[in-house]
Amino acid sequence: MAVIKVSAFRWAPPPAQGLVRDLRVRWALEETGLVYEQQLINWGDQSSASYRALQPFGQIPAYEEDGLTLFESGAIVLHIAERSDALMPSDPAARARVKTWIFAALNTVEPNIQNLAAIDFFYATEEWAKLRRPALEQTVNKRLVA
Amino acid sequence: MAVIKVSAFRWAPPPAQGLVRDLRVRWALEETGLVYEQQLINWGDQSSASYRALQPFGQIPAYEEDGLTLFESGAIVLHIAERSDALMPSDPAARARVKTWIFAALNTVEPNIQNLAAIDFFYATEEWAKLRRPALEQTVNKRLVA
Repeated sequence: MAVIKVSAFRWAPPPAQGLVRDLRVRWALEETGLVYEQQLINWGDQSSASYRALQPFGQIPAYEEDGLTLFESGAIVLHIAERSDALMPSDPAARARVKTWIFAALNTVEPNIQNLAAIDFFYATEEWAKLRRPALEQTVNKRLVA
Repeated sequence: MAVIKVSAFRWAPPPAQGLVRDLRVRWALEETGLVYEQQLINWGDQSSASYRALQPFGQIPAYEEDGLTLFESGAIVLHIAERSDALMPSDPAARARVKTWIFAALNTVEPNIQNLAAIDFFYATEEWAKLRRPALEQTVNKRLVA
């Protein structure tokens, strides 16, 4: 049986703990019961030539499995889901629905939330962030009640 | 043969013309040679109950085909690509690669560009935008040369 490998950070700073995107992939793997190994890297390793060969943007996670190499948590979770009844039904219309909502979560719901989180985690003291935050929070709320 | 329907705006303001996301879906359909109909809606129709039933966020495009309903341009383009040699090869590793890059384009490359475009198109005269733009442009450039 092929060994699945998922890259992750050996350590993440407190604000990022539990938020690094390998979590989504590990979660999907745990749901399916597939066995995997973690490949732990350090922060500096992201820019190494060997890691960039696996993940051209230096991000977490990268995924390896029997000659397949994937990156992007969305692509990896979809790849795992496609071969597991635990994550995706077999009916074609239902499968299309699952794919639609994977993209909706990543492309319609997450981007504004990510911008708001970036302000709160990284730019809270900057003038532009203070000016920008109220309208951005409204945008996030509007999307969440859609 | 099933009729494919893609929603689009009857008219878009000049800054948005050619940038509304039905373009990606139409482009994929044209590449595959699949026949489709456009379902043109007006700006106000986005919030109508009938359109929200098709697309819960009121966005363009929505896609209908023989009982399948999809939304999110990424999900629709992937759906079209999966059954056409014109857009996706048959080898499993190559298919995984295509999926990886669809998500990379939408989730790693596009979000910062979209933030920069939003500043230039919609918020250029706002103080926060002027303060924010230089660092954001650097972030975009860094990603594009990765």
